[in-house]
Parts: sequence; structure tokens; C-alpha cells
Amino acid sequence: MARDIVNFNAGPAGLPTAVLERAQAELMDFQGTGMSIMEHSHRGKAYDAVHNEAMSLTRSLMGVPDSYDVLFLQGGASGMFATIPMNFLTAGKVADYVITGTWSQKAIEEAQRIGEVRVAGTGKVGERFVRIPEALDLTPGAAYVHVTSNNTIAGTQYRAFPKTEAPLVADMSSDIMSRPVDVSQFSLLYAGAQKNLGPSGVVLVLVRRDWLAQASTTIPKIFRFKTHADKQSLYHTPPTFAIYLMRNVMQWIGEHGGLEGMAKRNAAKAEALYAAIDASGGFYASDVEVAARSEMNVVWRLPSEDLDKAFVAEATAAGLVGLKGHRDVGGIRASLYNAVELAGVERLVTFMKDFKNKR
Amino acid sequence: MARDIVNFNAGPAGLPTAVLERAQAELMDFQGTGMSIMEHSHRGKAYDAVHNEAMSLTRSLMGVPDSYDVLFLQGGASGMFATIPMNFLTAGKVADYVITGTWSQKAIEEAQRIGEVRVAGTGKVGERFVRIPEALDLTPGAAYVHVTSNNTIAGTQYRAFPKTEAPLVADMSSDIMSRPVDVSQFSLLYAGAQKNLGPSGVVLVLVRRDWLAQASTTIPKIFRFKTHADKQSLYHTPPTFAIYLMRNVMQWIGEHGGLEGMAKRNAAKAEALYAAIDASGGFYASDVEVAARSEMNVVWRLPSEDLDKAFVAEATAAGLVGLKGHRDVGGIRASLYNAVELAGVERLVTFMKDFKNKR
Repeated sequence: MARDIVNFNAGPAGLPTAVLERAQAELMDFQGTGMSIMEHSHRGKAYDAVHNEAMSLTRSLMGVPDSYDVLFLQGGASGMFATIPMNFLTAGKVADYVITGTWSQKAIEEAQRIGEVRVAGTGKVGERFVRIPEALDLTPGAAYVHVTSNNTIAGTQYRAFPKTEAPLVADMSSDIMSRPVDVSQFSLLYAGAQKNLGPSGVVLVLVRRDWLAQASTTIPKIFRFKTHADKQSLYHTPPTFAIYLMRNVMQWIGEHGGLEGMAKRNAAKAEALYAAIDASGGFYASDVEVAARSEMNVVWRLPSEDLDKAFVAEATAAGLVGLKGHRDVGGIRASLYNAVELAGVERLVTFMKDFKNKR
Repeated sequence: MARDIVNFNAGPAGLPTAVLERAQAELMDFQGTGMSIMEHSHRGKAYDAVHNEAMSLTRSLMGVPDSYDVLFLQGGASGMFATIPMNFLTAGKVADYVITGTWSQKAIEEAQRIGEVRVAGTGKVGERFVRIPEALDLTPGAAYVHVTSNNTIAGTQYRAFPKTEAPLVADMSSDIMSRPVDVSQFSLLYAGAQKNLGPSGVVLVLVRRDWLAQASTTIPKIFRFKTHADKQSLYHTPPTFAIYLMRNVMQWIGEHGGLEGMAKRNAAKAEALYAAIDASGGFYASDVEVAARSEMNVVWRLPSEDLDKAFVAEATAAGLVGLKGHRDVGGIRASLYNAVELAGVERLVTFMKDFKNKR
């Protein structure tokens, strides 16, 4: 089949073909060293250059201020759900969480096991997460306010982030580097790589150094963000191959206009798909408020669950894969991360028209 | 250069060439799916088969009893240094640690931040870790006894493990699957993959299910081993590509005689190298007690630090890479993990003879 499919997976997700081709070409012998990059010591010159380039590309693409540390960690966003409160929700403090979907919910549940938390806002209307709340009920003197920038299951996304007195923390796992973002709004932002940045197994974290200095110094050393900041994420063996691939993806982002370029690509893809939904006369329908529509994960339903199933089956047969909605909510979901090409979305749109016309 | 080197790295370490060739061949298109395995959903059929095969290969190669869970986790052995006491060193309990090198030391330091620990034995004589202690000072009713099966920096290794009343826990990061081991001796054993099993970024854990049932239920959910056991290590997104490579390495181990086959290969390699050291008339010397010599990491010194440096430089130029001793102890270290071929060790032995004769 040789990559003649369109990968709409929600994560792990598709990677740019050029990135994989390069990884393939140098898999057996990285730059004439006679070894794969994954066989190099994480303390050797070859890997060190890759590691440092991944850090500097993060800084240049995202415009990370010098007052922030860039970390590459393990444990996924789910690990961060625990380590953020372990570091910053110390005794006597309260943290505010904005709940806009399943992942926000998991984040607050983990924080509840560690300290006192409050719900500062919700995106839920009835049974579904369909919006991004505007007005928040913030706690004066909160340790931090946690938001989820994009909700993969709900299909909602922040356009602008709330202004908060307390440090703002964002889970950007599903829209990191999909658009320019002013990093200085956040005291900490984090993202699992497996949607826009690389394979699963590495988390990108940006954290304000002065906030980091206030973190707990009594939790296990491996879970202190400062441990990793102090050692440039080489305190212990990092997931070297995942970081190498992330470096390659970031190079590709740079070659495609950086985050401005990604934003244009992603807006065009989302526009094409939402236009097809809106033009279907209700055959394809979504509960998501228009103002909250995600450019990363587009969710919709057909008139029946049987039609949902038929849609996914026929789409898969047509080489459009990964369209089944999350098991918690059903329906259809197309994830349009950076690596998805507009031509792929156009194939989906054509398929959607044909599928509807046949009914 | 095309892999015409011998990789003696201590970890991340060399992988079997056949494993990398296969990964390279299917990197762009895994089994005709049109996607790389790393682009597949961790909840889809293609990855699921890989994941399950990695689990069943672990069971068959190591002879894992049915009463044990097999886990694939993130965070490295350094993460386990914290999560083991978080799970099992609950209030009022004491854990015993046997200190046989730098990594045991790091393990106990992390445990000290969580609960009460005691040193049950040490491999230190003077300033150096040169032996495996026979007699242990064990605490009656200890939560567990922690040992490090092989010490990468010290170059020592357990032949037989202590019999303990308390649950025995072993860090096997640097000799996992290098030889047959009776799993039923241990309540928990763990290993970062990056030496004998795959790339960095995944930890293999075997844990007795009845012991797991006694673990803390108040720590963050992501750090409870039971969370991962209950979901077959799919509670959150696993490091899919690292697990895929680990699966391929385990297949390769199976094709090469399983753990009996690895033990024979590894014994032959270690024997050849120790014989060269012992036959050098003291030019190559090691403090390590003969009974404690590691088959995985062979450490030695030359008559001066200048000669150590010259040795490493000339060896590197001759395509024998990764021989510099750990920065904590200096000298020379050759890591002879599963993927290193006997022919590679013979090249090193020849080089050692030539180097000595030139002096």
C-alpha cells in the first residue's frame, strides 16, 4: 500500500513522510558513525548534538523566552497530571482546574489525590463538553490554574487563553506547535509528543525558571522538574530515539514556515472539513459550539450509529483511516495534526459527499 | 563506515543488526498498513498484536509464572527507584537495600525520601565496589529487600541471589535476559530496556500479582503498578515504537537459543576478555573480586591515566567504541550486552595485545 492512506489517528498520529524517510535512511548508520542514533550513548557527542538541537529548535519555533527551561521528560501527559501538583500544589495551597474534556477531568482527579483543588470552569453543557468557558471562578492566591488547550475527544480548542493572576499551566498535548502561542502567558506548558511532534514516549515541557524555584524539594528527585532542568534533561537516560524523531519533526516544521506556516496549513484543513459538515444539511452534525471548534480534532455524527459504523468502515476501505470517534463518545473524529496534508482532507471531504449522496 | 565498528557502549547500547534491518525495512509501511508502526493507534489491531507478542515473548523467554504481571512502563529505572517505595514502603514499614554500586546508591537515596530504609549489605571495600556481599543484615518483617543484579559502573554481578523472607526486588537493568533466572525468587524485578532489550524509553517490570494487591492505593494513579497491570500497560499511551523494537529484540533472542543461548554467548565473550586481562601480567588490572566479575560490564585499568586515555583513543580509531570507563571511576569499561558478538570481543582482545606489545 506504501503510505497511500490518510492517517487521521488521534495519537499516536501520522508523521511527515520526509521525517520517516530520513529516519529510515540513517537508521543503521547515523552520520557515518557506524551506529544507529539509538545505539549512541546519551552522553556522547552524536546524541548530544541532536538533543541540543531539539532544545534550540523548541526555543526558536515557539519563541521561548530565556527565562524558561525546556525539558524532555518521560511518563506522558498522564504523568504530568501527577507531577505538576506534586511540584506546585504544596500543603495549604489550592489549585484551580478548568474542565473542558476527558483529559482535564483526569488531570484534576490525579491532583485531588495530592492536594486541594477547585473547578474554576467547565466546558460541559448537559452531558457533553461542547464549549470553552469564558468566565472563570478563580481562587484568589491559587497555586496555579490548569487548562487543556485542545480537547481531543470533545473537539474543542481555546482561541485565547484566560488571563489569570495565579500561574497558568496548560496541557497542550494535542495542539502543541500547531499555531503560534505566546509562551510568556504560561508558567508551565506541556505536551506529549505523539500528536504533533513525534512518536509516543516523550513529553515536552516549558517552565518559567523563577516558578520552578518555588517547587517542592521533598518529593522524589526524579519527579522534581528542577532535577531535569538542572541537567538539561540528561539526569537519567532520556528516550533518545523519540527525541531524535522530535528533532526531525521540528526541522520539518521549520522548513514549512514554522508555527505560522503550521497555523495556515491547519486552518485550511479545518476550514475545508467544517465547511463539508456545515454544507451537509444536517447529515453530518456536531454539538460543538462554532466558537470552540478545534482545528486539530474535528468531531461529528451521522443520523444513526449504524451510519457512523458504515461511514468508518467505508472510509477505512477507501484508505481514510483512524476516523472512529473515541469510545467514550462515539461518532466520527478526524484528527488534523500538523502532518496531515490538505490533500488528505480533500480526499475525506470528497468521500463524505459521495457517502451522503449514496444514502 | 556501515556498522564496521564494535559498540561497547554501557547503555543505550548496540542492538542486533538484524533487528535494526527489520525496523528499517518496515519503518515507512508496517505490514502493508501504509503507516509506520509508530503512527498506529496504541488501541488499534496492528499495535495490539505487537504489544501482546512482546508480553508473551517476555513470559516465554523468562519463564514468567502465571501469577506474575508483565508491565511496560516509562520513566526508566530511576523512576522505579521512586515508585517501588511509593507502592510498597508504606507508613511504619522498613525496606532493606543492598548497596553494590552507584545505581543501588541512587535507589536507596530515592527511597529515603519516601520512607524508612536500612542498608542490609554493601559491596564496597575501601573506596570501591568490588564484591557482592554474601552475608546480609536483614530487617525482620521488612517491606522488601532491594538488590541490583549487575553493576554497570563497578563491573560486578550476582551469581546467585540471596534467599530472603521479605519480598525480593531486583533492578536487572543491565543484565535482564542475558541468562536464565528463576523469576519466582523475586516479588518484583525491573529493567530499563536500553542495554539488553531495546532503545531507551521503556522499562520492563515483572511483579507478583498477590504482592501487587498489597500496594498503596493512595499514591497518584499513574504511579500505582496496579493501574498498569489492570490495563495491560495500556492505561495511557505506551512508548509504542520502543516496545515494538523490544519485541523484535526478544524475537532475535528466541532465534538465538533463548536465555540459555544468551548465557552461552555472554559467558564466551566475558571469558575471552577476562582471560586477556589475566594474561597481561598486570598491565591490564581490575580490583573486582573474581567471584563477583560481571559478564556484562568488564572494567579494568592500565598502569596510568595517560595510558587509559591512549587506550581509549587508539581503540576508538580502530573501530572499538564506547570503552571509556564511567566518569565516576575512570579506567576502561567494555559492556558485553547480548547484541555484542564474540568476534567483536576477539577484535578487542587482539587490540589489547597489540597495544600492550607496543609499550
